[in-house]
Amino acid sequence: MRVVEIVERKRDGAKLSAGEIDRIVLGYAKGEVPDYQMAAFLMAVVWRGMDDEETAQLTDAMVRSGERLDLSRFGRVVDKHSTGGIGDKVTLVVAPLVAACGAPVAKMSGRGLGITGGTLDKLESFRGYRVDLTTRELLAQLERIGIVVTGQTKELAPADGLMYALRDQTGTVPAIPLIASSIMSKKIAAGAHAVVLDVKVGAGAFMRTLARAKELARLMVAIGKAHGLEVTAELTAMDAPLGRAVGNALEAAEAIATLRGEGPSDLREVALAAGAEMLFYARRARTRAAGRALLEAAIADGGGLAKLRALVAAQGGDATMVDDPSRLPRARRVEELRAERAAYVARLDAAGIGLASVRLGAGREKKGDPIDHATGVVLRAKVGDRVAKGQVYAEVHRDDAPGDAEALDLVRRAFSWKSERVARPKLVLGRLTSSR
Amino acid sequence: MRVVEIVERKRDGAKLSAGEIDRIVLGYAKGEVPDYQMAAFLMAVVWRGMDDEETAQLTDAMVRSGERLDLSRFGRVVDKHSTGGIGDKVTLVVAPLVAACGAPVAKMSGRGLGITGGTLDKLESFRGYRVDLTTRELLAQLERIGIVVTGQTKELAPADGLMYALRDQTGTVPAIPLIASSIMSKKIAAGAHAVVLDVKVGAGAFMRTLARAKELARLMVAIGKAHGLEVTAELTAMDAPLGRAVGNALEAAEAIATLRGEGPSDLREVALAAGAEMLFYARRARTRAAGRALLEAAIADGGGLAKLRALVAAQGGDATMVDDPSRLPRARRVEELRAERAAYVARLDAAGIGLASVRLGAGREKKGDPIDHATGVVLRAKVGDRVAKGQVYAEVHRDDAPGDAEALDLVRRAFSWKSERVARPKLVLGRLTSSR
Repeated sequence: MRVVEIVERKRDGAKLSAGEIDRIVLGYAKGEVPDYQMAAFLMAVVWRGMDDEETAQLTDAMVRSGERLDLSRFGRVVDKHSTGGIGDKVTLVVAPLVAACGAPVAKMSGRGLGITGGTLDKLESFRGYRVDLTTRELLAQLERIGIVVTGQTKELAPADGLMYALRDQTGTVPAIPLIASSIMSKKIAAGAHAVVLDVKVGAGAFMRTLARAKELARLMVAIGKAHGLEVTAELTAMDAPLGRAVGNALEAAEAIATLRGEGPSDLREVALAAGAEMLFYARRARTRAAGRALLEAAIADGGGLAKLRALVAAQGGDATMVDDPSRLPRARRVEELRAERAAYVARLDAAGIGLASVRLGAGREKKGDPIDHATGVVLRAKVGDRVAKGQVYAEVHRDDAPGDAEALDLVRRAFSWKSERVARPKLVLGRLTSSR
Repeated sequence: MRVVEIVERKRDGAKLSAGEIDRIVLGYAKGEVPDYQMAAFLMAVVWRGMDDEETAQLTDAMVRSGERLDLSRFGRVVDKHSTGGIGDKVTLVVAPLVAACGAPVAKMSGRGLGITGGTLDKLESFRGYRVDLTTRELLAQLERIGIVVTGQTKELAPADGLMYALRDQTGTVPAIPLIASSIMSKKIAAGAHAVVLDVKVGAGAFMRTLARAKELARLMVAIGKAHGLEVTAELTAMDAPLGRAVGNALEAAEAIATLRGEGPSDLREVALAAGAEMLFYARRARTRAAGRALLEAAIADGGGLAKLRALVAAQGGDATMVDDPSRLPRARRVEELRAERAAYVARLDAAGIGLASVRLGAGREKKGDPIDHATGVVLRAKVGDRVAKGQVYAEVHRDDAPGDAEALDLVRRAFSWKSERVARPKLVLGRLTSSR
């Protein structure tokens, strides 16, 4: 079968066989299928979709395009993944906590792009932190301290890496089967036995509606099942940023505060829910409630913070910053925005805050752009909070970038105000799971 | 605006501006837009379509990607185009006839691909016939003898040439706006003031249904109007082959017979209808009926045949073959298929006959394949004809190709038989025109 016929079959809405999917995906990874045929195929998938079986086979082909880590000697390895939002520093909190509770954590994370931040960028706020561990280094560190957070190695799911880069250039990003297979292929190739997914929903997330988020969650759970993985997907709100800090070092500091029991309640809540699920899947807790209790203890006794310190040190970062966050990169100026009148925060637009942080230099417009780890936004008021006239509701941490004025304006416009009391929004919107 | 955003807008069903269409089409022709972005764009167009205005702008961008011939010193230049069918040798008949009636004919034709034959291949049956004239040679010959039939020069609508090659490899051929703009951009760039289109409909044509053929015809007429051209589209049946001969030299011989007044009635009818329209548009006849009378006179007095002889000689071909078609390439063997019982031909599947001719070597599976000019099929009975038991209903002209046995079987199966009388099918199914 010629590759163009596979493209034509998908164009005409047919269901592809495993052999056809292998042909195009593995052929593409080997360089036998040209970019233009893959691009046409991807657009046909955006148009026609793929059913669960096709998506599982697509994921499988991506996994088989490269190496698959075998981590079974470490016991049940549980991974987590967030579909990305503004202020999402959950990994920096939950990975150390879960590792502190005895479950091995080998997490491959990504960089920020556009309005969405990336865990690797946040960790690089700890001067010297390396995100390019080899597989050998990863395994040695996991053995020694039970936690690794690094970039994806090229050997894992290379077809996904190639397809992802092409999707970005061809308008073929927003197809749920492509998103689901991209995420799950990396998790499966990285050796996970179980995955806890945080599917973000709302104005600051890739999934704008609950219906689409549910479909993505359902599909990822189905793919996991087809590959023998346990999967839970939490659907959480991303209309407003998570926590109060947006920007790399600011978020690292907020993660440290949370590990000290002093973090914002929404961040703590999302981290504890994900962590409890991870401990359950790692067989370190018999129930979620028991898992949650273990995590709370690891906050109270400083075990989580110690694990973050060990992680940063192991990967070459400046661990003294963990104990003294004031040593993290700091912006030259902090601009305070003050309320013009007493009012309640009615809405807080995550996308606006995310874009402001890009303008401040904290994010990147395109891959490879340098970023400023110090800049960002701190939200001193969130939805439902009341501020008095003249009270500071946001801080803009800036380093005199050309986009500063626009950033200040974006932050101002991200807040909507109301005279009457406003209910605090719901955070967890749903949960799908493979096992219970 | 980034090119990927243009792709995304079409993916989301938006109407593109002239500037956006220029950006992607002219950028592609210059090599600034990569194949993969164009491939994704083309699949998005297959999915979402384009309205008349977008299609006219797409055509215009294709024309502006290269040179545009100015033939106005020759008077009103009328081109013709067929969307392609089996046994369609109309150009070989109508171009000499129209030129004999005093209207200049500068026709750029194509090669056969798949089951559809090509005018250039048919003309190359005249040993030595050149199809690669330069623009300068084309103009000189048009001046001298009033007729040229050659291949498209690379300078005309190069964006179309590049996009057409990419469509073939990416499953993006069957989109009516892409088909219409591809045809019309070449006609406009080649300097036509009017175009007579033959849109084939049926099992042996690219347009299988009358509805799709009408839509293609309507769109091409609209594009022509938007560019100031007069356009008529005839919709003609292509369930059975046109005429009796299928295969290059066999078709050349049939064209010669038709110019002598001895051709099959369906071929003669389609040629006279198209030619009358061409003479009308060229201002050589005040009515279609008058045009038809001129053409019939050019058959009767041998003027058409003389013009074909002049054409073949001018382009380096062996003109003696025009006067003695037995000198055209001839296959080694002629296999006669005989009726097993007395019956009427109920159906005659053009696609089956076309595929048989490919198997015999008369057509090509993919671009650049060599072909055998001698082989093919002659249909001694057509739909509605009655054959006696043992009577020959088809000849298979073969040169011992590996596909001969399959070809014979295909020809046999292309005929359906009935004991009762069968009506002869309608040939002209409709007509759309820009001007009356």
